[in-house]
Amino acid sequence: MTIRKSFMTVLALVFALASASLSAQETYTLRLAETWGPNSPILGETTRHMASMAEKMSGGRLQFRIDSSNKHKAPFGIFDMVKAGQYDMGHTASYYYKGSIPNAMYFTTVPFGMIAPEQYAWFYYGGGMELMEKVYRPHGLLSFPGGNTGNQMGGWFREEINSVEDLQGLKMRTPGFAGEVMSEVGVAVTNIPPGELYSALERGTIDALEWVGPALDFQMGFHQIAKYYYSGWQEPGAEVQFLINEKTWNKLPEELQEVLRVAMRTAAYDMYIQSMHESGVAWDRMKEDYPDVTHKTFPPEVIEALRDATEKLLAEEAEKDELAREIITSQQDYLKQVRQWTNISDKAYLNSVSGE
Amino acid sequence: MTIRKSFMTVLALVFALASASLSAQETYTLRLAETWGPNSPILGETTRHMASMAEKMSGGRLQFRIDSSNKHKAPFGIFDMVKAGQYDMGHTASYYYKGSIPNAMYFTTVPFGMIAPEQYAWFYYGGGMELMEKVYRPHGLLSFPGGNTGNQMGGWFREEINSVEDLQGLKMRTPGFAGEVMSEVGVAVTNIPPGELYSALERGTIDALEWVGPALDFQMGFHQIAKYYYSGWQEPGAEVQFLINEKTWNKLPEELQEVLRVAMRTAAYDMYIQSMHESGVAWDRMKEDYPDVTHKTFPPEVIEALRDATEKLLAEEAEKDELAREIITSQQDYLKQVRQWTNISDKAYLNSVSGE
Repeated sequence: MTIRKSFMTVLALVFALASASLSAQETYTLRLAETWGPNSPILGETTRHMASMAEKMSGGRLQFRIDSSNKHKAPFGIFDMVKAGQYDMGHTASYYYKGSIPNAMYFTTVPFGMIAPEQYAWFYYGGGMELMEKVYRPHGLLSFPGGNTGNQMGGWFREEINSVEDLQGLKMRTPGFAGEVMSEVGVAVTNIPPGELYSALERGTIDALEWVGPALDFQMGFHQIAKYYYSGWQEPGAEVQFLINEKTWNKLPEELQEVLRVAMRTAAYDMYIQSMHESGVAWDRMKEDYPDVTHKTFPPEVIEALRDATEKLLAEEAEKDELAREIITSQQDYLKQVRQWTNISDKAYLNSVSGE
Repeated sequence: MTIRKSFMTVLALVFALASASLSAQETYTLRLAETWGPNSPILGETTRHMASMAEKMSGGRLQFRIDSSNKHKAPFGIFDMVKAGQYDMGHTASYYYKGSIPNAMYFTTVPFGMIAPEQYAWFYYGGGMELMEKVYRPHGLLSFPGGNTGNQMGGWFREEINSVEDLQGLKMRTPGFAGEVMSEVGVAVTNIPPGELYSALERGTIDALEWVGPALDFQMGFHQIAKYYYSGWQEPGAEVQFLINEKTWNKLPEELQEVLRVAMRTAAYDMYIQSMHESGVAWDRMKEDYPDVTHKTFPPEVIEALRDATEKLLAEEAEKDELAREIITSQQDYLKQVRQWTNISDKAYLNSVSGE
């Protein structure tokens, strides 16, 4: 009887220990849909880099199943799929969803806006995260910065742009809000699927196009056709995003939430730094292999026209919606403050060591 | 007999489970010594931010006991204390240890070197981490980037600097390698403990001094005495460091090594971004509250002289030591490549939106 009683006690103990141990060891497999195709350089690497860090840090308790666009067939439907719970997470860009949630567009980049480190400062120390939450929480979603491309180039042009006159009727592929701005100054803006861009440029269906920067432009081959490569104004620091369904987030134990949060934050910063590295390598190689590629900056007259058009369109958005106004004002005020510092630090330094 | 046998089996199971569970729950308390005093803004916050992320991500299995300089009394002895195992970790700056390991100085910043994101690209994608390992591993230490101050200002001057002539005999506090460069062009370089800087400047014991940037300069009050605030050249992206004793590192289970590695990496990036934020806030306030503070850039003649002196001194270091040559060459080659990209992206953009 004593033995039997001890036996039962021990059994109970075994179950208690086993279940505690099981709950501590419970694994969570998160299904993630990315906008990018399979083996997408930098962007797709970032998704996997995040997953790898989170898996290692959690001792395997966080697992990821990543689907590229060839699998889910909805590169611009990430927002809807994560909202509906078809996927737990997404890796995409906020401004793709301007159609369904207009205020999403401010969390990627804005023409004449902040460069990457300024924008991270706004997100993390200047109220940006709170505003992004205001936009995404009503959809049952959490949104986090997901990696920066760095300052994007203004695009590849077959002819030089010396005046606003030169932009009139120019057929150019440039999507999103920047396309609206371009349209405002007289450009014939057109959108063409990425796979057809090269031949459209070659055949003269378009005169110019904007893609990303050397790191991602090089493989597209545009430099073989268009010789003028212009510095940008339209996406000074494009930040992609991680989306998470709130229900998935709430299911995770606190320490795994933190593992995921920090893995996303580091992967995002790393993408910015990797983009800088790859752009340096690619631009160096392009200059060497294609010496007739010429770097240009738009003349002040063109910059001014684009800037006026941007301000006009942003003012219109602010008129239409209270939250839009709040976000635009927050970004403009923050930019005004932080840019003064950028100007007397990095800008002054870069100019003093190599001239303007 | 059967019951007794089961009982023994069950007991064995209990012990196995309990010990597995104990090892999974084992906590590690790491003692960390920081160069900074207690409540040091930005720098000390970074140490605690790292610790907090690592504690949360590990579910409490990683714990930290952080000692500031008032406790260990050896702000510039962190390298020795972590090497000797008195502390498991340190938060300090590599260039403080030039005296004992000359090659340590290249892993903080170099005059006329890379700005913060360029330098992170060199560390993580351009071979910098491997070179840092070559310097620190023989001492039984691991070194990781620990946070960037951003581009440091050239300093506070009581009089304008319009020529190299104006630098002759100028009494200036500027420590380290930048001090050697200043000395080379004719400045009477002096070192003064931080606590005495304000009164030294006030009494004219020194004519000028270099500290950090608006975020940390503001509280020192130098702007109340010296009115000329010059943009920098000497520390374009000062990165502090986390040091870890290799034996401590090897004791940690793999997942906690990853937790620690990622917590340090994120805390470092965050410090760069926080520095940018705080500098923006402080410079804005300084301009408002002290309208007679004037921002200046050194004239090209002065920049050229400082640059020549820097190159001469670096060439001398490269002559003396094979590893020094390897590091200097790696940094200079990388800078040459990445700066071309910085120039056509952020620099071109910043100049086009606000003039030089």
